[in-house]
Amino acid sequence: MTSVPEPSPELLHRAGAVRLAAVDLGQTSDDQRAQALHAMADALERHADAIVAANQEDLSRSAVAGLASALMARLKLDASKLAGAIDGVRKVADLADPLGQRQLHRELDQGLVLERISVPVGVVGVIFEARPDAVMQIASLAIRSGNGAILKGGSEARCTNEAVMTALRDGLAKSDVSPEALTLLTTRQESLALLRLDGLVDLIIPRGSNELVQFIQDNTRIPVLGHADGICHLFVDAAADLHKAVKIAVDSKTQYPAACNAIETLLVHRSVAKEFLARACPAFQEVGVSLRGDQASLAFGVPTPATDEDWTTEYLDLILAVRVVDSIDEAMDHIRQYGSRHTEVIVTEDQAAATRFVSAVDSAGVYHNCSSRFADGFRYGFGAEVGISTQTLPPRGPVGLDGLVTYRYVLRGDGHLAADFASGQRQFTHRDLPL
Amino acid sequence: MTSVPEPSPELLHRAGAVRLAAVDLGQTSDDQRAQALHAMADALERHADAIVAANQEDLSRSAVAGLASALMARLKLDASKLAGAIDGVRKVADLADPLGQRQLHRELDQGLVLERISVPVGVVGVIFEARPDAVMQIASLAIRSGNGAILKGGSEARCTNEAVMTALRDGLAKSDVSPEALTLLTTRQESLALLRLDGLVDLIIPRGSNELVQFIQDNTRIPVLGHADGICHLFVDAAADLHKAVKIAVDSKTQYPAACNAIETLLVHRSVAKEFLARACPAFQEVGVSLRGDQASLAFGVPTPATDEDWTTEYLDLILAVRVVDSIDEAMDHIRQYGSRHTEVIVTEDQAAATRFVSAVDSAGVYHNCSSRFADGFRYGFGAEVGISTQTLPPRGPVGLDGLVTYRYVLRGDGHLAADFASGQRQFTHRDLPL
Repeated sequence: MTSVPEPSPELLHRAGAVRLAAVDLGQTSDDQRAQALHAMADALERHADAIVAANQEDLSRSAVAGLASALMARLKLDASKLAGAIDGVRKVADLADPLGQRQLHRELDQGLVLERISVPVGVVGVIFEARPDAVMQIASLAIRSGNGAILKGGSEARCTNEAVMTALRDGLAKSDVSPEALTLLTTRQESLALLRLDGLVDLIIPRGSNELVQFIQDNTRIPVLGHADGICHLFVDAAADLHKAVKIAVDSKTQYPAACNAIETLLVHRSVAKEFLARACPAFQEVGVSLRGDQASLAFGVPTPATDEDWTTEYLDLILAVRVVDSIDEAMDHIRQYGSRHTEVIVTEDQAAATRFVSAVDSAGVYHNCSSRFADGFRYGFGAEVGISTQTLPPRGPVGLDGLVTYRYVLRGDGHLAADFASGQRQFTHRDLPL
Repeated sequence: MTSVPEPSPELLHRAGAVRLAAVDLGQTSDDQRAQALHAMADALERHADAIVAANQEDLSRSAVAGLASALMARLKLDASKLAGAIDGVRKVADLADPLGQRQLHRELDQGLVLERISVPVGVVGVIFEARPDAVMQIASLAIRSGNGAILKGGSEARCTNEAVMTALRDGLAKSDVSPEALTLLTTRQESLALLRLDGLVDLIIPRGSNELVQFIQDNTRIPVLGHADGICHLFVDAAADLHKAVKIAVDSKTQYPAACNAIETLLVHRSVAKEFLARACPAFQEVGVSLRGDQASLAFGVPTPATDEDWTTEYLDLILAVRVVDSIDEAMDHIRQYGSRHTEVIVTEDQAAATRFVSAVDSAGVYHNCSSRFADGFRYGFGAEVGISTQTLPPRGPVGLDGLVTYRYVLRGDGHLAADFASGQRQFTHRDLPL
């Protein structure tokens, strides 16, 4: 196992500067933060040529190193992709302010008033792989929500990330937000040591492979927002509209197979398995999906046998495991045993079965008669997405700006003492006030 | 370091049974869960003699073993304390249902509707020290919020805990909730192995010493709700009403010094230090509090010099560190450096200073002109308390029933496919519907 080094004095110094800047940032107004994002976008436009040139350098170096073509495509940041990313920064600027929301307002006693107010998390540490547009997306989400950010990108995108960060800090320098609120780590040693910055970093957001997320979860005491696996299921119930079921299954698998919200396992009720698979097998074959099935499904046209390993594999590819089940209970048991609590779908015209499924299956998303691919912050209408969380505690599922926000209790009194309540001299009123 | 053993097959079996029972429990109605709590309370009444007798056994054994008298007092559960605890169970029954709350309701497209619904966390693992009333409190909070619970109490209270658990399960047997939803671990090996039950246990709640909490945080991947330290500060500002300041300071330190929300450090603005300490020193002396001060405060009557270690010590005792600061900024810097982000108080008549303090100090509680001792779930009007959390992410501060609840996204459609939106054939409406 890779060992996690102690942070260097230089890293502690840089992280401390981000933390201090974040304290001021947390007290800025909605307008100041929105304007800071527009200043970041303006600066990215000014620096566009330098950023694209830096990306060319990364691309050439990676081509020589023989980077896989899919990764080359993700690494590429041309003028048009950059313009799209800049537009994204401005969109985040225009999102509603997640800070300063009063979530609770209660009189505890005459003159003693409690409020619960949304505040920034503080400093987020973001570790991401090849895609250089992640720097812009994460930096804008962080600043919009009043958080400092320490970013570490993949080494393939080193030049691009540095050029982007230079632009972002240049933009902040022309705003009320300190450029110190953002910093970019460049070495692997630093990104490992980031995991040890408890007290300076409040939340780690890994964006990358399952292995990356798992490694981070196992090597830090800082809370980690993310998910290691996305083993999503679609269950075709006895009462499914089979035409609908085939279309939803194909969309859920193929609309973007590399995404975590694509399905990996299809569960089919025995009573409709023959008819459903007679339609689904050719439909999947047509779009290039290889099916691997249990014994029962092999009899209904699935060509390849599945092994136990298939139920726990996130293919992220045009492969789908198929299992015939005797009941909705057996389907839910399978999901409980093999699922990763990401997103599960039931296709059925039986409302009672649908209600049972969405109340008994404990995944971040439980869907009825629609594609698993809707599990996404943009599609949910959050405007932007930090990531998708499969942890049980909030934030869960697609996480928008609100995942970078926490709260604080503010209590204002006029000399109120606990002893007076303990002695019975005073009684709590606990009267809710308007929010 | 104590090593954390792998769970035994027997523990895995028991935890699996709790998990299964929790799935059913999560689907019960508000009424069913409230009635289950009343059935638990009824059974505790029926078993009262057996529980008190079991407690006598624990007390005798502990007396022979020479348990400290403060711990003996906490261990004791006589008929009157038991009646109070039973009353507490009925009070939790009467709290508002935290489940099934619709937190978001949004049309994504015609016929495609997203909801965010509050659901139980699943299974909570609770590790607590001597106090046997914790079993009743935690079990009732867990069942009320639809969660299974695996409890492990201190070995001193072994007989009491077993008698209480027998009663609670007997009560559940007469309700719609399965007795399997609650289980009690009895050996130290089991409680250590509990930390390894990722996937079966969703949240660990340690209730005990700082060392216990720290050990658990360092030895589990399961989220931990709690706090290791409570280093709370009170800042007497230049514009403080000194009469008010002395009374709030004394209450914050002495109303219950062993509590995490008692102050450990008093910060005093230099401009009022002489006058404030002239009043505060005798006031503290009168109630038996030993003051330890920095150089400047020694000159104003604090008898004993403080060392650097004092700023990071949670005394939990009648000892208070005192430091004179030049400004509110220096006070806030001190809090940032040495605090544990629990609860901090400013005493001032200057509204601008108060506003600055509560917006710049990032602790779970930030108070103006009132005692730090109000940081408590009962005092906040939550009706009951799981514990107090000093983590940054929610739940933060005193945690009531809502800390045992998470949410799930439910999406209902009628054959909706992601491809239709990707191709531009359909557009998201993102129209919020009434909650």
